[in-house]
Amino acid sequence: MTTAAVTALVLDLAGTFAFALNGALTAVRAARLDIVGVVTLGMITALGGGIVRDILLGALPPATFNDWRYLAVAAGGGLLAFALSRQLERLATPIEIFDALGLSLFAVTGAAKAMTLGAGAGQAILLGAITAVGGGTIRDVLVRRVPTVLSSELYAIPALLGAAVVVLGTRAGLGPLLPALAGAGLCLLVRLIGLRFRLDAPHPPGRAG
Amino acid sequence: MTTAAVTALVLDLAGTFAFALNGALTAVRAARLDIVGVVTLGMITALGGGIVRDILLGALPPATFNDWRYLAVAAGGGLLAFALSRQLERLATPIEIFDALGLSLFAVTGAAKAMTLGAGAGQAILLGAITAVGGGTIRDVLVRRVPTVLSSELYAIPALLGAAVVVLGTRAGLGPLLPALAGAGLCLLVRLIGLRFRLDAPHPPGRAG
Amino acid sequence: MTTAAVTALVLDLAGTFAFALNGALTAVRAARLDIVGVVTLGMITALGGGIVRDILLGALPPATFNDWRYLAVAAGGGLLAFALSRQLERLATPIEIFDALGLSLFAVTGAAKAMTLGAGAGQAILLGAITAVGGGTIRDVLVRRVPTVLSSELYAIPALLGAAVVVLGTRAGLGPLLPALAGAGLCLLVRLIGLRFRLDAPHPPGRAG
Repeated sequence: MTTAAVTALVLDLAGTFAFALNGALTAVRAARLDIVGVVTLGMITALGGGIVRDILLGALPPATFNDWRYLAVAAGGGLLAFALSRQLERLATPIEIFDALGLSLFAVTGAAKAMTLGAGAGQAILLGAITAVGGGTIRDVLVRRVPTVLSSELYAIPALLGAAVVVLGTRAGLGPLLPALAGAGLCLLVRLIGLRFRLDAPHPPGRAG
Repeated sequence: MTTAAVTALVLDLAGTFAFALNGALTAVRAARLDIVGVVTLGMITALGGGIVRDILLGALPPATFNDWRYLAVAAGGGLLAFALSRQLERLATPIEIFDALGLSLFAVTGAAKAMTLGAGAGQAILLGAITAVGGGTIRDVLVRRVPTVLSSELYAIPALLGAAVVVLGTRAGLGPLLPALAGAGLCLLVRLIGLRFRLDAPHPPGRAG
Repeated sequence: MTTAAVTALVLDLAGTFAFALNGALTAVRAARLDIVGVVTLGMITALGGGIVRDILLGALPPATFNDWRYLAVAAGGGLLAFALSRQLERLATPIEIFDALGLSLFAVTGAAKAMTLGAGAGQAILLGAITAVGGGTIRDVLVRRVPTVLSSELYAIPALLGAAVVVLGTRAGLGPLLPALAGAGLCLLVRLIGLRFRLDAPHPPGRAG
């Protein structure tokens, strides 16, 4: 494997693991599900974004079904979160941290995969963001919440920023690793600042927000 | 470009714009979202139907990602609705009119695209209707409403009628423009009559409805 | 047609019919929809799982749009349930039985189709289960329920068991018919036992469940 491929795989599996933990903890906290529901929601959250990306790229079957490491990591994350849910469930922070990690990693790996498959710069940025927010959006629909990407905190913007750093950095010839780490770091930073200070994007004119 | 292609593009972009306005206003009215949420919901409403159609046709990546005019028109419509939301939000009528316009335009362009890609008459009619109702259905799921296509007003039927006019008119050799305008006009008329008089399709036997 | 193809088609159409009845009755019971909504929800429930499977396999357009028998059976089931809704709606049992039948039949036909298209054993089992639970999950999202696959009864597990029987039996050279019937029978049995005794999978440690 090339350095680019190894970089992409490692970051992608790390994002998958983070989203699996997040989805499974959401299932425990928000919906009081049993083990099948917890692991299923963890896997859907972990794999949903990449599946949506691959459908939109026409790269079917999705990587998930060609490469069992994704399924194994997603299932493992879901099971781990189920086993540790008693310790973790009272804490809101881990859920949001895992979500922010998955968001950041998938924004960069989604954009990188889109470029690899020939997408233009704009499309790659958009597909990176869709990969990042896709799994969490499906998660929220399934547990009947308005998706985070639509509600008030900074969520889509850091994903777009992270994907843009990857696309521009790769185009500038900085190699696969540096832009990926810089993009993921920027996305994570903006997302965590948004969470910490409950920053919202502007509301419609003439409202208190 | 041929006349058929220009016709299809203009009507498709007009439908995209109408649905973007509708989705963004829905976000302002129904869910009190910020600018990112408003524009995102506008874009999903505008682009969702065409993406579903292209997935079902196997025409991937979807036209949206190959032709930036769709993304630009969808984003522009969402931003415009956000900026004007104070003026528009108290009015229920514009939301429903934009939705009816998008429904009518996408029913005809969806059916025409399906025929272009080799679908049979029945499939083209069904895919036209799916294109027409797809974006609004995703919109309703995301803001947690029972989708309009399932609830009580005439919605799927005018879309099927409009798509049928396009398919039959094109098969009869009436060219691309006339059947498209007739189909969109019929769909719009039936939908507006349904909205005006709150006409419903028949309810199950033995109920007041 | 070969025996395998006939077997697959008959079981697939039977599953389509069962899910169409289930989805239409759900529309009558849970959401008080009109005839268009009832038939639409019946068709989405009946066809959704197979469409998701075909998207994930990259087998586009989905079989539904190439073979009108699926659409006809789905629409017929939805219309029949609408006509008989007065007789059926007070009974919770038929809805759950039809759902269990559809689940069982789609688990085996989904796994068989995945194998036919070259999926490995693990992927075929997973795709069988996704086919089985897909339509009902979309149904539940559209009528705003937490999907059955996530909530507390045995649902995904019998689907995985049924798909596994088909995959292992076919690999063992037992032909198409016997593994399909055995897999569907096992899935149905486990699902009905789960329904009868309200058996749940284990809940997170430290809870009453």
